[in-house]
Amino acid sequence: MPASPADSALYRPLLGDDQTAALFSDSAEIRAMLLVEGALARVQGDLGLIPQAAAAFIDRASREVLIDPAGLAAATAVNGVPVPALVAAFRKAMEAPDHAQYVHWGATSQDIMDTALALRLRRVVAIWQDRLDGLIHTLGLLAVAHADLPMAARTYGQAATPTSFGAVVAGWGHPVLRHRARLAALAPDLALVSLGGAAGTLSAMGPQGPAVRAGLAQALGLADPGAAWHSERDRIGAFAAWMAGLCATLGKMGEDLILLSQTGIAEVTISGAGASSTMPQKQNPVGPSVLVALARQSGALAGAVQGAGLHRQQRDGAAWFVEWLTLPQLCISTGRALALAADLATRIAPDQAAMARGLAGDLGLIQAEGFTFALARHMPRPDAQDRIKALCAEAVGSGVPLPDLVARDFPDLRLAPDAGLGTAPADARGFGGLAGALTRA
Amino acid sequence: MPASPADSALYRPLLGDDQTAALFSDSAEIRAMLLVEGALARVQGDLGLIPQAAAAFIDRASREVLIDPAGLAAATAVNGVPVPALVAAFRKAMEAPDHAQYVHWGATSQDIMDTALALRLRRVVAIWQDRLDGLIHTLGLLAVAHADLPMAARTYGQAATPTSFGAVVAGWGHPVLRHRARLAALAPDLALVSLGGAAGTLSAMGPQGPAVRAGLAQALGLADPGAAWHSERDRIGAFAAWMAGLCATLGKMGEDLILLSQTGIAEVTISGAGASSTMPQKQNPVGPSVLVALARQSGALAGAVQGAGLHRQQRDGAAWFVEWLTLPQLCISTGRALALAADLATRIAPDQAAMARGLAGDLGLIQAEGFTFALARHMPRPDAQDRIKALCAEAVGSGVPLPDLVARDFPDLRLAPDAGLGTAPADARGFGGLAGALTRA
Amino acid sequence: MPASPADSALYRPLLGDDQTAALFSDSAEIRAMLLVEGALARVQGDLGLIPQAAAAFIDRASREVLIDPAGLAAATAVNGVPVPALVAAFRKAMEAPDHAQYVHWGATSQDIMDTALALRLRRVVAIWQDRLDGLIHTLGLLAVAHADLPMAARTYGQAATPTSFGAVVAGWGHPVLRHRARLAALAPDLALVSLGGAAGTLSAMGPQGPAVRAGLAQALGLADPGAAWHSERDRIGAFAAWMAGLCATLGKMGEDLILLSQTGIAEVTISGAGASSTMPQKQNPVGPSVLVALARQSGALAGAVQGAGLHRQQRDGAAWFVEWLTLPQLCISTGRALALAADLATRIAPDQAAMARGLAGDLGLIQAEGFTFALARHMPRPDAQDRIKALCAEAVGSGVPLPDLVARDFPDLRLAPDAGLGTAPADARGFGGLAGALTRA
Amino acid sequence: MPASPADSALYRPLLGDDQTAALFSDSAEIRAMLLVEGALARVQGDLGLIPQAAAAFIDRASREVLIDPAGLAAATAVNGVPVPALVAAFRKAMEAPDHAQYVHWGATSQDIMDTALALRLRRVVAIWQDRLDGLIHTLGLLAVAHADLPMAARTYGQAATPTSFGAVVAGWGHPVLRHRARLAALAPDLALVSLGGAAGTLSAMGPQGPAVRAGLAQALGLADPGAAWHSERDRIGAFAAWMAGLCATLGKMGEDLILLSQTGIAEVTISGAGASSTMPQKQNPVGPSVLVALARQSGALAGAVQGAGLHRQQRDGAAWFVEWLTLPQLCISTGRALALAADLATRIAPDQAAMARGLAGDLGLIQAEGFTFALARHMPRPDAQDRIKALCAEAVGSGVPLPDLVARDFPDLRLAPDAGLGTAPADARGFGGLAGALTRA
Repeated sequence: MPASPADSALYRPLLGDDQTAALFSDSAEIRAMLLVEGALARVQGDLGLIPQAAAAFIDRASREVLIDPAGLAAATAVNGVPVPALVAAFRKAMEAPDHAQYVHWGATSQDIMDTALALRLRRVVAIWQDRLDGLIHTLGLLAVAHADLPMAARTYGQAATPTSFGAVVAGWGHPVLRHRARLAALAPDLALVSLGGAAGTLSAMGPQGPAVRAGLAQALGLADPGAAWHSERDRIGAFAAWMAGLCATLGKMGEDLILLSQTGIAEVTISGAGASSTMPQKQNPVGPSVLVALARQSGALAGAVQGAGLHRQQRDGAAWFVEWLTLPQLCISTGRALALAADLATRIAPDQAAMARGLAGDLGLIQAEGFTFALARHMPRPDAQDRIKALCAEAVGSGVPLPDLVARDFPDLRLAPDAGLGTAPADARGFGGLAGALTRA
Repeated sequence: MPASPADSALYRPLLGDDQTAALFSDSAEIRAMLLVEGALARVQGDLGLIPQAAAAFIDRASREVLIDPAGLAAATAVNGVPVPALVAAFRKAMEAPDHAQYVHWGATSQDIMDTALALRLRRVVAIWQDRLDGLIHTLGLLAVAHADLPMAARTYGQAATPTSFGAVVAGWGHPVLRHRARLAALAPDLALVSLGGAAGTLSAMGPQGPAVRAGLAQALGLADPGAAWHSERDRIGAFAAWMAGLCATLGKMGEDLILLSQTGIAEVTISGAGASSTMPQKQNPVGPSVLVALARQSGALAGAVQGAGLHRQQRDGAAWFVEWLTLPQLCISTGRALALAADLATRIAPDQAAMARGLAGDLGLIQAEGFTFALARHMPRPDAQDRIKALCAEAVGSGVPLPDLVARDFPDLRLAPDAGLGTAPADARGFGGLAGALTRA
Repeated sequence: MPASPADSALYRPLLGDDQTAALFSDSAEIRAMLLVEGALARVQGDLGLIPQAAAAFIDRASREVLIDPAGLAAATAVNGVPVPALVAAFRKAMEAPDHAQYVHWGATSQDIMDTALALRLRRVVAIWQDRLDGLIHTLGLLAVAHADLPMAARTYGQAATPTSFGAVVAGWGHPVLRHRARLAALAPDLALVSLGGAAGTLSAMGPQGPAVRAGLAQALGLADPGAAWHSERDRIGAFAAWMAGLCATLGKMGEDLILLSQTGIAEVTISGAGASSTMPQKQNPVGPSVLVALARQSGALAGAVQGAGLHRQQRDGAAWFVEWLTLPQLCISTGRALALAADLATRIAPDQAAMARGLAGDLGLIQAEGFTFALARHMPRPDAQDRIKALCAEAVGSGVPLPDLVARDFPDLRLAPDAGLGTAPADARGFGGLAGALTRA
Repeated sequence: MPASPADSALYRPLLGDDQTAALFSDSAEIRAMLLVEGALARVQGDLGLIPQAAAAFIDRASREVLIDPAGLAAATAVNGVPVPALVAAFRKAMEAPDHAQYVHWGATSQDIMDTALALRLRRVVAIWQDRLDGLIHTLGLLAVAHADLPMAARTYGQAATPTSFGAVVAGWGHPVLRHRARLAALAPDLALVSLGGAAGTLSAMGPQGPAVRAGLAQALGLADPGAAWHSERDRIGAFAAWMAGLCATLGKMGEDLILLSQTGIAEVTISGAGASSTMPQKQNPVGPSVLVALARQSGALAGAVQGAGLHRQQRDGAAWFVEWLTLPQLCISTGRALALAADLATRIAPDQAAMARGLAGDLGLIQAEGFTFALARHMPRPDAQDRIKALCAEAVGSGVPLPDLVARDFPDLRLAPDAGLGTAPADARGFGGLAGALTRA
């Protein structure tokens, strides 16, 4: 019964991401929570807080026991958290009450759940870093391959002046590079142990609390933030915002692809585009449309996560539940957007002829600025602008292309063959160089 | 692999709503789409657009065939819609190519999916109308039962003047009554057939297009909007906004319950509250916290749905996908909020003694406005206000309650026993009357 | 120092709306609040709650006194509401302490401010109803005038099948008609008096509280909701959602205009389009872009207003402040969107030749569905679909338009001259009829 | 006519921030744009792109000319950008057509406006860095001063276990420290020159385009991003998200203060709290409420800015206008939140007696976890938990405080005097140390 298409057998390949979703499954969460309980016991055993024998037993059991999510559901609905039921089920499954009493010693539910989340977010980030690299790599190749391919730049949907397809691709890629760097900067903030006990003070562990937290961090390969962060959700918020930002960047690429593949423009073709149920000729830009949709959804969800930063007092169920209701979906949609963009980047191809038509079309008016500045080398710029503006008007009135009229009146005036592209080729190659350096590294 | 806790075996009883979710399952959607295809054929057969025999065959098959959602998933990922694959699978399953060719005659994917959505939203609305009635009924009884039970009204978290618990409950209930009326007003806008063909013009059906749409509407028990609405999403947007509005109202009730059940205030007890994994004494207001969280999530999702009203041209995959990614979750969260609020309303009880302490506490300063206006009958109001303000200061300085100081200085001044409650009892009973009239009707 | 471009001398004509904004000026608010205080006194005098002479004096003074907003600012920053300072300034300006003491008798700040808001929202709604009528009228004329003008319908940016420009315009207009009806339904919910006193119970007014509220409503031409609504913000939320919904509808019109005016498509021209600072030929669709931007902004703001429905306890400063921070901007942006759309509707014109090119272009593939269904009258539909699909492929391969290939192979097959338009002309005229009936009424 | 309370004479001190707003005034924007035009000319003169004499003249004039914002408004409404009118007005004011023709040579409107924005955001950031330091400093002192002051930690609004007020303050401060570091990391991304010309390729400047951009960056003290960023809005989006994140953190502090200052709890007093218009005793937590409201507004606005990252093609008026409509307000609200939080931090004081009552109240049940773990040193933990749970029940039934019952049954069992506080004192001092080190540096 899917609330989310990512959980639907029908829609999952379109709108889901199995690899990311696997980390948010019930069993993945329970496994991670047990791992945390096991490591906690081990560390507490080493520090003499609980008996070594019990610690070893708990640790081993935490890796072996199988607990059915559905069996915890009723108690979870009452308690608002699965941990009390999980601990009870774990203790029972251990069949060793003397040892079992030491499970979850001095921890609170949120410690276990947040640490279990950190363990999985670390893996999410690793999956995405690969996808980011793949996307950047493909965009880099594409930018370089078409660095000199002229096309119309468009502003407000209007042809402006020429650019190159490679430069357009670089314009998609540069923000991805930056998002990659931002992710690298914030990733350590996600891979943190959470251990604060009931009120963030670890009081039940006595003076050894901080040592337990440090030990638990080390045991799990996480970092120790040095304090509880139950109600400090700024790092989660920053991660959510990062996802929304990345999805917006990929959504922009989607928007551009929709516009470039429009009937009548068709400067980019997308292989494997979608069929219509009634129109034989249709080739719908499904992938780009999905990118746009994921961007809008992600923005909304990230806003909810950021809002949950108003996390009251020492722990706030309401704010925390907001994260549960939005963060997994946000991660899966982000993962989907990344995978889809990386895939799309390998499926798009510019149509050189269509791009040439786009430049020549509209009576060559796109060269107006170029002619103006060329002419301004021979007369004051306002005069040049007036002369070219008049020729634009004549072109529109007569249907004779602007370049022909310019050639008629100023036979010696020439735009250098590549002058119109300005920095576009270099911009494209510049991005390609960065992308290459990155993915070679 | 739940992107949504509503799809999780572990969290579904806490954050999901099986009854609402059942209408968004893959099989429910496929069943509804087949129902639409069947009815479409029947109507087209009756109108002579396709052969009667084929129509009857298709109609019957649409009710019998079983189609596996997962089998459509790959094609759905390519086409962006499940309908082409569904139609192909349906045709194949019919094993009667002569008839099968008439399936989906002149319709477009969005016709089928939007009509199938309408069929299910109609049932969602019916489920919720019952829940709304149940919630209103319970709140009505609660308001009347405690119409005269005094408690402190609080503004900015500060005790203001007295009110009654019944009036507080009425304040939760009045907006629910209005949301109920709004739902009744907008429900017809959801139960609409969608039939426009490729571009909303029904061109493939010739002059009989409008008759087919009217017939399809009648066959399915939906209304005929008289035109295509592929890209007119204002009705969906209004429904989403209604959901967000209802959830905000229920979230406000949740906030109040959290505040009223705080340690140190504890004027309301909630039976069946949640246990802590480490603190034996804790009784967490889990349900109210969930209401607040669902309100925040719903607001975010409704914003995304409203934004999808910028549905470009004649159909816009990107905008439509946004609805897919958010509307089911929004419906399920709304359903959960309604069910939970209705349940909570039966589980809360005021603590009369705690409420009395709340009124008496803080040195009785809550009576300051009452004394001021009582005294202003005997002297100018600014003088009265000054005198009472001075006694407030004396109370705070000396620790002697304000009423005692007033009795000392103005022995004859008395607040009528119930004067402090003002309209609260009548407000409570007024709501109770409306609620009763409604649910008796 | 404009936080909002609507408050900027530079940007106001682009992004503001003076007529709507006038109702949110400091002086308009103060005037409205004084009006409420005056009417309250008059009603309380009539009911014997305060002396008649004082009432008359206050009432008269409330219409004559001039109070400088800036003079209240410091106290407003401390108290969080302007009312205490306003009442103090008003009392002082009256220079009649005996009468002045009866100002604001038993009311709370929120009563005054919410009622003053209602007075102004009533006028906002009236202004907008005129604009809605104007917009509907213009769209109705446009739809009828171009009911039969063929153009390509586009889905996912791809040419789908033909429609008419009039039908496209009708598609913009229908939701506006519905928004108009929704506004009419919710307008009474905005024109409500608010009078509840400190805690919503009117306790300071004794048994006459409800009579005062009823009288105040009558005096101000507002309705009496029968209870306090300090913390029941569902009506404000519904109004905000309506604004977001309307702006989304107008934003969709903006998106369509941007797409239709693109270079290379140019099927619609917009007179008075914007100039570029460097490109002589540019005609930017500024107005449509503004519509899109206002829709996005409105959606965000409406979400905040809806979220403020989680208004805690009997009054909640935090939730209320959210309304102050967003509602005026939301109203002004909505007003701007309405005025701009109404203006744009008079400035757009279809380019018949460009539309014809849009239909003929792409090798006439847009007729593929039409040919399929025409041919399916002579052979099984799958066969027909196969034959046309093959001709589509031949057209793409050879560059010969599809209609020519169809004529070659099926010389007798003809699409009726207007068959391709389906219901488009009738849809356009249908909307025109509704629009005309409405604005004639 | 304020769309924003930050632009209102009445509300500005409550909800605005003059220092931040000054950078968004019309005149500040025009001044900054002229500064950019002047520097551009100077750099182009140095590089021989335009005559040196013209460059010098333009540069000087750009610092001297005064241009009235209102005079540009009509053209701005038509063009969608103020730059064409500004350039025209500037040229006219120069009264030197020979020189004036070289103004704005090869640049586009967005270059000028984005660079002018960068100049002002750099100053905004500097202002805020001071405020951040001030806030951190005050919180650091507060945390240390009350590092050992015990109070009840609260989760879900329920007393959990003890913490210290200093630790609570540290919990507010730690995220501020991190936001400070994040701002430092993203600030360079805001201080960037924008120069791309019509389509981001600088084609009108010939091969010297990149040199002009580098020179302009140097002249203005900005960095050169090495490419155009007209449609790469990820940096603006990240900044917006940072603002929302900071405001959420400050909003959490606001929520905590509202809850801690509630009547009946009153563990924190806020000097200078707001008065009521009708209740003499009220002390409303106005400032904390404003913090919460600003957080909700900021979240909504940041979402809109992030959404504008779907900036289509080479420039997109619609997406850009969204930034204009939201970014200044977002900055001003963030500035206000920072100033207010820094001010509030100096105005709050814990009430030791009230905190002690909070700990002792509720029959000392808050010690239940502490007793359990203390007792678990002498018997198996499940037994200990059972014994303490039974005593909790007895306490509730008999009204005898839990500590007394524990003393009766386990006379030797003692919680170390500070054991209950766990790491709270050290956490508070740890934050104080970081804060001190930072603000000493």
